[in-house]
Amino acid sequence: MTNPNLLILPGDGIGPEVMAEVRRIIDWFGAKRGLAFDVSEDLVGGAAYDAHGTPLTDATMEKAQEADAVLLGAVGGPKYDVLDFSVKPERGLLRLRKEMDLFANLRPAQCFDALADFSSLKRDVVAGLDIMIVRELTSGIYFGEPRGIIHEGNERVGINTQRYTESEIERVARSAFELARRRGNKVCSMEKANVMESGVLWREVVTKIGETEYPDVELSHMYADAGAMQLCRWPKQFDVIVTDNLFGDLLSDAAAMLTGSLGMLPSASLGAPMANGRPKALYEPVHGSAPDIAGQGKANPIACILSFAMALRYSFDQGAEADRLEAAVEKVLADGVRTADLMQSDGGSPVSTSGMGDAVLAAL
Amino acid sequence: MTNPNLLILPGDGIGPEVMAEVRRIIDWFGAKRGLAFDVSEDLVGGAAYDAHGTPLTDATMEKAQEADAVLLGAVGGPKYDVLDFSVKPERGLLRLRKEMDLFANLRPAQCFDALADFSSLKRDVVAGLDIMIVRELTSGIYFGEPRGIIHEGNERVGINTQRYTESEIERVARSAFELARRRGNKVCSMEKANVMESGVLWREVVTKIGETEYPDVELSHMYADAGAMQLCRWPKQFDVIVTDNLFGDLLSDAAAMLTGSLGMLPSASLGAPMANGRPKALYEPVHGSAPDIAGQGKANPIACILSFAMALRYSFDQGAEADRLEAAVEKVLADGVRTADLMQSDGGSPVSTSGMGDAVLAAL
Ligand SMILES: CC(C)[C@H](C(=O)O)[C@@H](O)C(=O)O
Ligand SMILES: CC(C)[C@H](C(=O)O)[C@@H](O)C(=O)O
Repeated sequence: MTNPNLLILPGDGIGPEVMAEVRRIIDWFGAKRGLAFDVSEDLVGGAAYDAHGTPLTDATMEKAQEADAVLLGAVGGPKYDVLDFSVKPERGLLRLRKEMDLFANLRPAQCFDALADFSSLKRDVVAGLDIMIVRELTSGIYFGEPRGIIHEGNERVGINTQRYTESEIERVARSAFELARRRGNKVCSMEKANVMESGVLWREVVTKIGETEYPDVELSHMYADAGAMQLCRWPKQFDVIVTDNLFGDLLSDAAAMLTGSLGMLPSASLGAPMANGRPKALYEPVHGSAPDIAGQGKANPIACILSFAMALRYSFDQGAEADRLEAAVEKVLADGVRTADLMQSDGGSPVSTSGMGDAVLAAL
Repeated sequence: MTNPNLLILPGDGIGPEVMAEVRRIIDWFGAKRGLAFDVSEDLVGGAAYDAHGTPLTDATMEKAQEADAVLLGAVGGPKYDVLDFSVKPERGLLRLRKEMDLFANLRPAQCFDALADFSSLKRDVVAGLDIMIVRELTSGIYFGEPRGIIHEGNERVGINTQRYTESEIERVARSAFELARRRGNKVCSMEKANVMESGVLWREVVTKIGETEYPDVELSHMYADAGAMQLCRWPKQFDVIVTDNLFGDLLSDAAAMLTGSLGMLPSASLGAPMANGRPKALYEPVHGSAPDIAGQGKANPIACILSFAMALRYSFDQGAEADRLEAAVEKVLADGVRTADLMQSDGGSPVSTSGMGDAVLAAL
């Protein structure tokens, strides 16, 4: 049997630094746990634009389609702010999501016990928090047509279109219900059905899937603005949240920040199963490219390392190995190893990006 | 000179209860401060639907157009969930906003010192917080066409359209810059220019207005997802935030919840000046209709009372009287008077809605 192949796209900003640590972790699993991967690396985002004038070449797109899993660092940076919309770094990432049809974006918002005090929220509000946000990732206002800036009368008009088909809602709802069954058995669906017809359809379809296919899972609905409030007030009321692309963008970022563990949070973007049974999949940290600290060896590689743990679990059916990696990270944190982003103003001296990689390897 | 006229629309749920206390406050200003208003009352939302089969009659709409200011309680409730989209309670409120052209929604997110411990955030993160969110209120995805649920192939598709014209962005940007000049002199504009063309235009127009008309005001830009994060992390970094209708809905609700003072927060929705120089204006609490506690005398009337204070300030140029009312509320809170929503689980016995009204009147 050939090794599964992993495509690594470090991207921009701190992407390459944190990905370097992930590669060491991957090598460790190959050497010590008999989990060998064929790893190749390529460009995405601003890095691809610099080399090829496009944030994602067709050749890279093809490699991603054929990969057993893609690991991405981060894209974007102020250097590219002046670029035309169509070649901005983000378009590379969005093209990957769209063409691989990665409709279910899984964003765990988890509070690491050792970091609970780092949250801006009170300890009792976040300690032990473990929710999963399932964000629709291939449709909605991110991709709907018509879009653009047009001329009308003597002024310009900016236009985007929110569009959701029933089947798009059905499949992401199923992902959420499936996950809920393996967790707390609760799904909360969020939209603005009081204002948007696309939200009316969303609510109706999620309700139907729940009633007909997952009657054992507890389903509730919340307007997205109330959802934002409730996440800030008492996030532990949630288990799985399912929502659309744009609401998911804001809500999952807010939830991630609330945990106080932003530099720690991974994500998985999953599509339909391929011929080999594995889902199309892309894994990336929730944090961005952090241009302000890029290249300084300060970045926290844990979110990216835990994204690889998600790959082990969701792409390679290696739940036990994923647990092993996650436990190693927990141990390192419990031991007090901290990159700069995880330090309170009062304390100690931080380890570097590679120092954190060393610590995780040692804990493994 | 005739008295200015106030149209009161109590609406649904706790709306009528909290508005009853506001009427007592209005009467006090008439009797004690020589500020007499001609007050009339009418129906909106579910209450209007129950009486007339529509969430806002044309006659009420006309009254609102002619009022010097409109005070609204809240709309909506589970009883109306089964109604068709076109007659839902929310449509009444949205029609008022749209036809009165109330483009600038001012939502102060302020932390009342006496309530800082009530926030889910740590005291030092919220104590003294005072930011102003200016939300565009008459355009964007709330009103854009085409919209609806259509049939395509053998399935349905939910559609909404985000649309912003340059002039719509300009006028709300001006409102934000004007407010900033009277506050901390900083505006942060939020959109998703990395993903949406309407956000690209938004950023460009806000930048232009800033550079050409308000070079003295410090302007920054943030993607709305990062904005949601930063509000949760360190909200005091902001002074005035300007954003579109949908982002404003989520971000202002999150900000309101973070203060721990949700039942306390008013809002003003302002349009262009009328013939008498006053802006078209509607004032309403940020909280909703809270159907779970409606009719029980438990609701906190302060948000609605402070909405009247905003009316005094923005519609009737009575800044000193608005200060007086706000000071009375601060005093009541400092004295420890609390409705149920303001109690920690450990503490004391709450006053009723009218009990809070009594206390504010006594403090005046
Ligand atoms: C980089 C950007 C295009 C992206 C998004 O808006 O989806 C990011 O914010 C995310 O959440 O993954
Ligand atoms: C009631 C609803 C239509 C409204 C909105 O979405 O604008 C509310 O959430 C608000 O923020 O005033």
